[in-house]
Order: sequence, then C-alpha cells, then structure tokens
Amino acid sequence: MPRYRLTVEYDGSPYRGWQRQDDVLSVQAAIEQALENIGEPGSIVQGSGRTDAGVHALGQIAHVDLQQKWTGFRLTEAVNAHLRQSGETVAILDAEIVDDEFHARFSAIQRHYIFRIISRRAPLTVERGLAWNVKVPLDIDAMNEAAQVLIGEHDFTTFRSTECQAKSPVKTLDTLRVSKRHLHGVDVIEISTTARSYLHSQVRSFAGALKLAGEGRWTAKDMRVALEARDRQACAPVAPPHGLYLVAVSY
Amino acid sequence: MPRYRLTVEYDGSPYRGWQRQDDVLSVQAAIEQALENIGEPGSIVQGSGRTDAGVHALGQIAHVDLQQKWTGFRLTEAVNAHLRQSGETVAILDAEIVDDEFHARFSAIQRHYIFRIISRRAPLTVERGLAWNVKVPLDIDAMNEAAQVLIGEHDFTTFRSTECQAKSPVKTLDTLRVSKRHLHGVDVIEISTTARSYLHSQVRSFAGALKLAGEGRWTAKDMRVALEARDRQACAPVAPPHGLYLVAVSY
Repeated sequence: MPRYRLTVEYDGSPYRGWQRQDDVLSVQAAIEQALENIGEPGSIVQGSGRTDAGVHALGQIAHVDLQQKWTGFRLTEAVNAHLRQSGETVAILDAEIVDDEFHARFSAIQRHYIFRIISRRAPLTVERGLAWNVKVPLDIDAMNEAAQVLIGEHDFTTFRSTECQAKSPVKTLDTLRVSKRHLHGVDVIEISTTARSYLHSQVRSFAGALKLAGEGRWTAKDMRVALEARDRQACAPVAPPHGLYLVAVSY
Repeated sequence: MPRYRLTVEYDGSPYRGWQRQDDVLSVQAAIEQALENIGEPGSIVQGSGRTDAGVHALGQIAHVDLQQKWTGFRLTEAVNAHLRQSGETVAILDAEIVDDEFHARFSAIQRHYIFRIISRRAPLTVERGLAWNVKVPLDIDAMNEAAQVLIGEHDFTTFRSTECQAKSPVKTLDTLRVSKRHLHGVDVIEISTTARSYLHSQVRSFAGALKLAGEGRWTAKDMRVALEARDRQACAPVAPPHGLYLVAVSY
C-alpha cells in the first residue's frame, strides 16, 4: 500500500479539532470520509499533531496508506471534490507518495504556528473567526521583551492545559516573535513560534500571557515569575482558538 | 442636527449590497436599524457609493445627520453593540462630527478598490468568500501590461454593466496595478485601482479581463480592442463580487 504525504489547509471553526472523535465533526474524519467516497474505505489519516477545536491550519501535514496507486494530482483533486461537496472547510493543498518510513507525527522535527491578533474596539467583520479581537492597544516591544523569557528549554507547566497528556512538561522553544503588519488600514499583530513540539494549549497560553504584556499588565519579570512558578494557576487567561494557525511542519 | 462621518467595514457576503432596498438585507439598512435602536429613528445613512451584492468594504465612508449630539467614541460603541447583537457583519471603525457641507458621495474625490485573487487548484478554506479562487496560474507581468491599456480617460462601455445608470460611460482611471503577496504559503494576487468614480461592475469587469490576460488568453492588444469596441459583448466574464473590497475614499 503506497503511503501519501498530504498538506492540509482548514478553517477550524466548524470542527472539534483535528482528531477523529465519536459523534463530533473533526478534520481527520472529514478527510477519511472523502477518502471513503473515492473508494478508499477504512483509511486512517495520521496528522503531525492534533489541533484543538476551532484552531486553523495553513499547512498541516498528514500521512495515509491507500489501497490504490494515485498520482498526487488525481488524489488531491478527487478528495477536494468530495470535501467541497460535503461543505467541509478543509482542502488538500498537495499530495505526494512518500517512503513507508515517513511518519507525519514522529518524523516531524519542527512545528511552526502563528497567532493573529487584531487590536481595536470595533468588532471584526471580514476577519471574524480568523483573529483574536483584543479591545485594548498592545505594545509590540513589550510583548517581544516578555517573549524572550520563554525561549529555550523550560518546564512549561504554567503554560500547559491541565488536560495535557504529554509525559514531560519540559519543551524547547526555538523562536517566539511578535510583529505587526499594516494592510489596507487593518493592523494585524502576529505571534510567530517554532519548536519541535508543544504541550496542549501552549501557544494559546503564550498568546494570553503576551497580551497581558502588551497591555502593560505583565512585565518580562512577571512572565519569568509565571514560568518559574511551574503552576497552571500562574498562567494568564488562555487566548481563544480562532487566532491560532498551524502554518508549517518541518521534516 | 449634527452631521457625522462614519468609516464602515463589512463582510458583504450576507448583503444584497450597500443600498437599502425593500425586503432584502443591505448594509445601509443594518446601520439605520442600529441607529434606530440607539434612539435615532428615521436616520438616512448616505454612503460614498453603492457596493454590489457580496462586495466587501474595509473603509466605506458614509454620512448621517442625527438628532442627538454624540461623541464619535460613544456613537461608534453604541452602533457596534447593536450591529453585533443582530449578528450583522458590519462595524463602524470611526465616527466624527463633520461640517454640514461634507457629503459622503459628492465630496469624494477618489475611491480606492482592491480585488483579491488566489490562484490555485484547491478550494479556499480560511479565505473562502474573501477572494476569487482562480484554478489556473496567472502571469502578473502580463496582467500589468494589459492593465496599462485601461489607465487614463476612456469610454468604458465595454466594462460597464448593462444595468449601469451613469449618464456617461467616460471615466478617468488613475491607477490599476497588479501585485502578488506571499504570506504563510498562500499567494494572494491583488488588483489595486483608484479613480474619482467607477461605472457599475467596472472593477469586476476589469478583474475578469485581467484574469484572461494572466492566463495568456488575452494580450494587451486584445484588451485595447475590447476597450475600443465600446461594446459590453466584448467584455470578459465578470469576476465574482466576493473578491472585491472598497478600501478607502479620499475627500
């Protein structure tokens, strides 16, 4: 059975996350259903990682073993046609045959996420569901200063959901940067991060804490105190899922 | 009665356009209803121009005369609260008191539109309804070369809806440029244009013609022939409304 590597984009709003679960919509189940519709029943699509309910992806990577031999183009077109027909907000951007050794989750060496914030009083319209609408002004420099504290290897218990199933709370954060883009009158603040892997809710916990830093309510020192507390209670309110995007996975 | 200048943003998807009409949703009616809800019944909101069904705006300008004296902040907050409550995808970005001489439509000296295209085989997910998904590759240089033909004062009958009510088909196009932005793996092609005013469907007609140029199906010479035909039949298929944004209006 040939193995395929899929690049998957989705608007996560309608889904309870990537992972298939009983009786709820998931991105994985949507793709598996589309595969069944093209004559590939029982396929199991393995993602690089789970994304939470409501989280988006621009470049989620998955692998799947199929019974038939497809060209990447034919497979992409066929699956997308069925996803579209079912009204799913999921699309396969690319499919290619890979070696059986390739594993979307275990072969991954780096995951890249962004978290988008639009800070303004007015509710979002065009960007509704695509960014976190923070009602107060945010100081990018203060956010970057606080972000520095989190880079490197740390026990991230503070920034980890109590539901997290990882064995260890220690992770190494390669980058965490905050930038601002002005486009057609809309200012978008982007928190960008890369790491080999993350704890459950880690990026959203960072986004919540960096928001407090941007407001001037947390200094870099407060961020350090929170990190060193190794206590979930020390975390800022977690940012909502609809600002978060899994952008790319490196292998 | 003080006059207010409003800056309005909207996702045009749910609306039959800016202009109030009987028995259909419109952006104008949504704002007028919100004004009624805050104790300003019978207000007439005058936009800088009509946008068609499904067209978006990042910086539509309107004026309205109100009975009470509001600060810009209070008015914006109150109207947005009601728009939000009604589930409208419309937001007031700014409100300020202006001179009675100010007229959103007649004082305008320039309108700036963009038309967004994402050219790829895969259906859109995150950008669904926010860009035109063209399935074939487009050559930006060829599009820019063809765009040059349209700049300046011309009889734009070819690029004008048969429903257009303007007295003259002659307009002066100040700029028309095509550019490409690569962001997080997504290529967005942007057609950007400014003019004092436009004919009905003019920008969408341009976008449709420029798409043919990008595909290599129309040369710059074909664009000139179409323009000089002064015949609606010579136009390319009109691009869909959901790629179009009214970005700003100059006074």
